[in-house]
Amino acid sequence: MSDLKVAVVGAGLMGADHIIRIENRIVGATVSAIVEPDEGRAKAAMAEAPGATWFPNIEAALASGLVEAVLIATPGQFHEPVLLPAIAAGLPILCEKPLTPDAKSSMEVVQAEIAGGKQLIQVGFMRRFDAGYMQLRQLIESGEQGELLGLHCAHRNPSVPDSYNNDMLVYDSIVHEIDAVRFLTDSPIRSVEIKQMKRNSLSPEGLMEPILALLETESGVLATVEMNVSVQFGYQVKTEAVFQKGIAEIGRTAGMNLFAGGAISTAEHMSFKTRFADAYDSQIQRWVKAVKRGTIDGPSAWDGYLAAAAVEAGLAALHSGNKVVASYESKPAFYK
Amino acid sequence: MSDLKVAVVGAGLMGADHIIRIENRIVGATVSAIVEPDEGRAKAAMAEAPGATWFPNIEAALASGLVEAVLIATPGQFHEPVLLPAIAAGLPILCEKPLTPDAKSSMEVVQAEIAGGKQLIQVGFMRRFDAGYMQLRQLIESGEQGELLGLHCAHRNPSVPDSYNNDMLVYDSIVHEIDAVRFLTDSPIRSVEIKQMKRNSLSPEGLMEPILALLETESGVLATVEMNVSVQFGYQVKTEAVFQKGIAEIGRTAGMNLFAGGAISTAEHMSFKTRFADAYDSQIQRWVKAVKRGTIDGPSAWDGYLAAAAVEAGLAALHSGNKVVASYESKPAFYK
Amino acid sequence: MSDLKVAVVGAGLMGADHIIRIENRIVGATVSAIVEPDEGRAKAAMAEAPGATWFPNIEAALASGLVEAVLIATPGQFHEPVLLPAIAAGLPILCEKPLTPDAKSSMEVVQAEIAGGKQLIQVGFMRRFDAGYMQLRQLIESGEQGELLGLHCAHRNPSVPDSYNNDMLVYDSIVHEIDAVRFLTDSPIRSVEIKQMKRNSLSPEGLMEPILALLETESGVLATVEMNVSVQFGYQVKTEAVFQKGIAEIGRTAGMNLFAGGAISTAEHMSFKTRFADAYDSQIQRWVKAVKRGTIDGPSAWDGYLAAAAVEAGLAALHSGNKVVASYESKPAFYK
Amino acid sequence: MSDLKVAVVGAGLMGADHIIRIENRIVGATVSAIVEPDEGRAKAAMAEAPGATWFPNIEAALASGLVEAVLIATPGQFHEPVLLPAIAAGLPILCEKPLTPDAKSSMEVVQAEIAGGKQLIQVGFMRRFDAGYMQLRQLIESGEQGELLGLHCAHRNPSVPDSYNNDMLVYDSIVHEIDAVRFLTDSPIRSVEIKQMKRNSLSPEGLMEPILALLETESGVLATVEMNVSVQFGYQVKTEAVFQKGIAEIGRTAGMNLFAGGAISTAEHMSFKTRFADAYDSQIQRWVKAVKRGTIDGPSAWDGYLAAAAVEAGLAALHSGNKVVASYESKPAFYK
Repeated sequence: MSDLKVAVVGAGLMGADHIIRIENRIVGATVSAIVEPDEGRAKAAMAEAPGATWFPNIEAALASGLVEAVLIATPGQFHEPVLLPAIAAGLPILCEKPLTPDAKSSMEVVQAEIAGGKQLIQVGFMRRFDAGYMQLRQLIESGEQGELLGLHCAHRNPSVPDSYNNDMLVYDSIVHEIDAVRFLTDSPIRSVEIKQMKRNSLSPEGLMEPILALLETESGVLATVEMNVSVQFGYQVKTEAVFQKGIAEIGRTAGMNLFAGGAISTAEHMSFKTRFADAYDSQIQRWVKAVKRGTIDGPSAWDGYLAAAAVEAGLAALHSGNKVVASYESKPAFYK
Repeated sequence: MSDLKVAVVGAGLMGADHIIRIENRIVGATVSAIVEPDEGRAKAAMAEAPGATWFPNIEAALASGLVEAVLIATPGQFHEPVLLPAIAAGLPILCEKPLTPDAKSSMEVVQAEIAGGKQLIQVGFMRRFDAGYMQLRQLIESGEQGELLGLHCAHRNPSVPDSYNNDMLVYDSIVHEIDAVRFLTDSPIRSVEIKQMKRNSLSPEGLMEPILALLETESGVLATVEMNVSVQFGYQVKTEAVFQKGIAEIGRTAGMNLFAGGAISTAEHMSFKTRFADAYDSQIQRWVKAVKRGTIDGPSAWDGYLAAAAVEAGLAALHSGNKVVASYESKPAFYK
Repeated sequence: MSDLKVAVVGAGLMGADHIIRIENRIVGATVSAIVEPDEGRAKAAMAEAPGATWFPNIEAALASGLVEAVLIATPGQFHEPVLLPAIAAGLPILCEKPLTPDAKSSMEVVQAEIAGGKQLIQVGFMRRFDAGYMQLRQLIESGEQGELLGLHCAHRNPSVPDSYNNDMLVYDSIVHEIDAVRFLTDSPIRSVEIKQMKRNSLSPEGLMEPILALLETESGVLATVEMNVSVQFGYQVKTEAVFQKGIAEIGRTAGMNLFAGGAISTAEHMSFKTRFADAYDSQIQRWVKAVKRGTIDGPSAWDGYLAAAAVEAGLAALHSGNKVVASYESKPAFYK
Repeated sequence: MSDLKVAVVGAGLMGADHIIRIENRIVGATVSAIVEPDEGRAKAAMAEAPGATWFPNIEAALASGLVEAVLIATPGQFHEPVLLPAIAAGLPILCEKPLTPDAKSSMEVVQAEIAGGKQLIQVGFMRRFDAGYMQLRQLIESGEQGELLGLHCAHRNPSVPDSYNNDMLVYDSIVHEIDAVRFLTDSPIRSVEIKQMKRNSLSPEGLMEPILALLETESGVLATVEMNVSVQFGYQVKTEAVFQKGIAEIGRTAGMNLFAGGAISTAEHMSFKTRFADAYDSQIQRWVKAVKRGTIDGPSAWDGYLAAAAVEAGLAALHSGNKVVASYESKPAFYK
C-alpha cells in the first residue's frame, strides 16, 4: 500500500519534531504538505521533508490534491480554523492537544464532525501511548490489586519559557493529567480544586506555582497533581496508584546506574521530548495505520471536548480558590 | 554512673516492647518498676525485667523510692492522671504520644510543668529519631536545594484492629505527620483540611478511608498526607519533599533484592515495630542520657500541646469537610 | 526514495520476527522476497508480507531481480552458502550472528568480500544498538570516570530448549559478550578461560552450567561472564563496568514498581525478544538507511571473523579447562 | 546482673572505636581496663571510659583482678602474645580478625584453647552480624530458591593509607570474603586463584590492583571477589548470590533518594565504620550476652584457623598466578 500523504500544519517546535518523526521513524506515511505562514520556518521544515510542498494556509493545501490526512501542530487557539475545513473535506485529522481552548468551541468541532457522519478526529493526548500509562491502565482493568482508590501525580518541568503564563498551569500542563486520569479511571472528572504550594522564588515573575490540583472522578477516585514548572532538577512525570491491596508507581527514571562521587545515581530526563519520544512515535504510527483502515486509534473529539470542559472548571478553581464542579453536555450517540 | 531506675507505666503492647528495649538494648537504664493494674499483664512483663517491682498504680510506685524516671505507655486518655503526680514528684517523664487527647488537657499539663519550674516532659514522637527524617531535616536546614515548598506523605498500614475508629485516623495516626511536618518545617500547622479518597471496601465497617489530609504550615508549606489503614501490602511511611531545585524522598524500603519469579523485589515492612525499631531505640537511649544530665532531648510538652491543638483542627476538618484553622495559645517563655 | 527491497533468508523464529519488523516498524524498506525451503514456514511468513515472493533458495531469489539487499536469519552453519552468492551479486547483507561457525570459514567470507572490492556485510550483533551498551561505551570513551579496568557481565536465560548443547554456551551465547566486550573496550579478546560454577540440577541433561568465562582484552581489561541458561526467574543481561574512579551498571530492569504482598517489585524480562526489541529495530533501521547511502552502519565481516576466532579459543578453553590465547590473522587494510 | 568488665587491648583506630561503642551503646558491659603501651593513645582512650584503668601490658591487666573478658584490637601480628596469657587465665576473648597472621600460629592458639578445655575465643568476623549477610544465609538455608551455585562479591574501598601493601589485599581484605563465603555456604574454601584486572594508575605505588579472586568451596560453589582499594567513589561491599531458580543481592546502598542536577541518587558509604556500624554493635552486644552465659556467639578459634589457612593459599595464589588448593588440619572434636 502506498504511503499516506500527510499535511503537517504548523512548523514550529512541535510541528518540526513531527515532520522529522514521520519522515524517519513512521512506516507507511510521508509528509506531502507543510502548511505554515512563516516562510523561514517553512523552509527549515522543507529540508527535513524533501518530497513536501509548502502552502501558506490550509485551504490551499486542501485544494492541491496532495493531502490525504492532516496533522495539526499549531497553538490551540489556531486549531478550529484548520479543523473545520479539514472536516468539511472529509480528511482524517490528528490534532495536538487541546482540541480547542474552551468547551464551547470544542463542542462546535464535535458537532461539525457529527454532521459529517464519520469520526475523523484523533486528539494528541500522547500519554495514552506511553508504556507506563498503558501498563497501569491494564493493571487497573485487571482488578488484580482490587479497586483503584486514588492517584498521586507529579508533573515537573525544570523550567518554562517567559511566554508561559499562570493559566497555562491548567490549560497547557494539567490538561495532560485531566485526560490521563480519565484514561486510567475510565471516568470523567467531576470536580477540580486547586491549592497553592509555597511559591518557588525561582519561578518566572507572575507565576504562582507549584500548585496542587485535586481532581475527583465521577467514580469517586481522588487524584492529587503536583504541577511544578520550575523544579530545576529535571523533567519528571510520575504517577502512584493506590489500590485496595497495593500500590503501583510509574515514571521513575531508568537507564544506567552510575556509582561516582559518593553516590549511586540514574540520569533523569530534562525534556518531554526524550521522556515521551516513544509515546509520540507510537501515537503517530498507530494513527497512520488506523487512518489506512478508515478509523481512529486514540482519544476522539469527544475526549477533546471533555478535557476542554474540565479545563474550564480547573481555571475557575484556580481563579476562585474553590472546588468547581465541571459541567458537560450529554454524550452524543455518535461516539458510542 | 549507676543505671537510671525507670518506672514503665502500662504493660500492654507498647509498654511491654519498651520494657524489653530498656532491659536489652539501652545503656545506662534499668526497669525498676512496672505500673499496671492488670495482674496478668504485669506478671508477663516482670518476666522480662527480673529486677523490677510491680505496682498497681503510679502513686504507690512514686512512694516506693524505687523510681528515678517515668515512661508512660498507656493509652492517651490515661496520661494526665500519671503526668500530674509524676510532675509533682519532680521526675523526668517520657510520655508516649499523644501528650493528652485534647488541647485543653494538654495545656493543663503544660501549666503544671511550668509551675514546677523545670522541663520534665518529653513526648514520644519517635519519627524525629528516624534516620530518614533526620537526614531530610538536615537537608532542609542546609538550604542546599533551596527553600522547601511542599511535602507529600504516605502513611500506610496493612490493616488495623477492630477497635480502631474513624477519629483515630486523625488523633492516632495523622498526629504523627502533624508533628513530623512541624519538625521538618520548623513551623506550626496553620490549617487542616481532609478529603475522602474512594473508600476501600476492605476497611473495617465504620471506617471511611483512605483519606487525604492537607496540612498547611504557618511558613506556607503545603503537606499532603495519604492516610491509609487497609492497604494490605505492607506498612509504609514515606515522605517526598519538594524544594525549589530538587526533590528528596525518604522511607523507601531497603534490604536484600530478590530476583525471582519474573521480578526483582525488596521486602517491605509489615509493622511499625520493625519499621521504626531503630527510632524507638534511639529515642529512649538519648532520653536516658539526657535525663542523667538533667535535661530532655526531644519534643517537649509544648510540642505535645501544639500537636493536640492541630489534632482538634483535624478532627473538626474530618467532621465538617471544611478547611479548619488551628488556634494556639501563645508560647510561654518557659519553652524558650 | 522508494523502499529498499529486502530478501529475508530463513523464515524460522528469528526470520519471521524480522519480517514482521520490516513490514511494520522499519521506514524505507519492504520484504520483497522470502527464501525458505520449507513450504509451511514460507506460507506463514508470506501472510505477514503480502508484497513478497517466495523462493526456495537464494540463487532463485537473486536471479529474480526482486532483491536489493539480503537479511540472513538461518542457523549459522547455513550462512556461508548464502553469503558467497550474495557477495558475488554485489548485494548488501545483514547477517545474523555468527558470521559463520568457525574462524576458517569466516576468513573465507572476509576474503570474498575483499575480492569484491566493497564492504557489503554487516553482522547482527544487536547489543551494539541497545541503549545501555551505547551509553556505557560513551562513558568509557569520555574518560569521565578514568580508565576502564574490568567488566562483570551476567547473561541469564530462564531456560533453553532441548536442542541447546554444551558448546552453544560459548558459540551461541557467550559470543554476544565476546563481541560486546570488544565493542565496549575497543580491543580484541586476548584470551579466554572458563570455570565451572556449581551445576544447576535443573539444567537439561548434558549441560554443565552455569559457567564463568574470563575474557581478557589486549588492552588488559578483565571481563567476567556468568553464563547461565537455567536460572528460571527471568531473562537478564547485565554489565557492571569498573573504572578507576567509579562504577557503571547497565541492564537492570525498569518499568512499573508494584507494591504488593509485602514487597516492592519490578517485572523482569522473560525473553530476549522483549529485552532487545528496541535494539533489533534500531539495528535494522540504521542498516536500511546505511544501505541506501551505499555503506554499512554496524559490525563488519571483520568483526564477525574476530568473534569466530575468539569463540574457537573459548571452545578450546571449555574443553580443556585451561586459559587459551586466541590467534588472529592480521587486519586487512580493506577494513581500515 | 552487674556489668561485664572488659579489658580493651590496643587503643588505636579500631580499639578506640570499640571503647566508645562499649561505653555508649552496649548493654551489660563496661571498659574496666585499657591495655596500650603508648601513653598518648591510652590517655585519649581513657577520656571515653572514665571508669577504666590503664595498663601498659596484658600481664599487668590480668594480674589486677579488674578484668573479666578481653577484647583484642591490636594488629594481627600482636594477637598471639595476648591470646595465650588470656587463655591461660581462663578469660573469654573477642579477637579482631585475623586470629593470627598464619595457619601455624593460629593452630597453636587452637591447641592452647583445647588444652584449657573450654571455648574462650570468638573471632571478629563482623560481617556475620550484618543484616544483609544474615538475610542471605537464611535464604540459602531455606532452600526457597534451590541450591546455591555461585557468588559474585565486590569489596571496594575509596582509597587506602600508604602503609597498605600488596599482600594485604589477601590477608587484610579478602580474608573477609574468605570467612563470609564459608559462613554463607557452610563449606570450607577448597582453592584460591587470583587474576589481575587492569591496574588502576590511581593506586599507591607498589599495589597491583584491582584483582579478581576465585574462591571455590568444598561444596562446589564458585565465588568471584573483585578486590578494589582505590575506586574513589565510595566504600561498597556487595554480594550477588546465584541460585538454581533466582538471584539475591545484598549490600546496595539505602537511604534518602535525592532528585537533583538531572539525576536521582542515593548516598554511598565512604568507610567501613558507617557501613558496618550496626554489625560491630550487634557483634559485641551478642558477645557480651554470650560471655555472661559462659559461651561464645560467633566465629570460633577454629574459624580463625580455617581463614588463616585459606589466606595462606590466597597469598600463594597471588604470588604464583596459579590456582592453589588450601590444606587444613582435620577438625578437632572439641569444636563439634
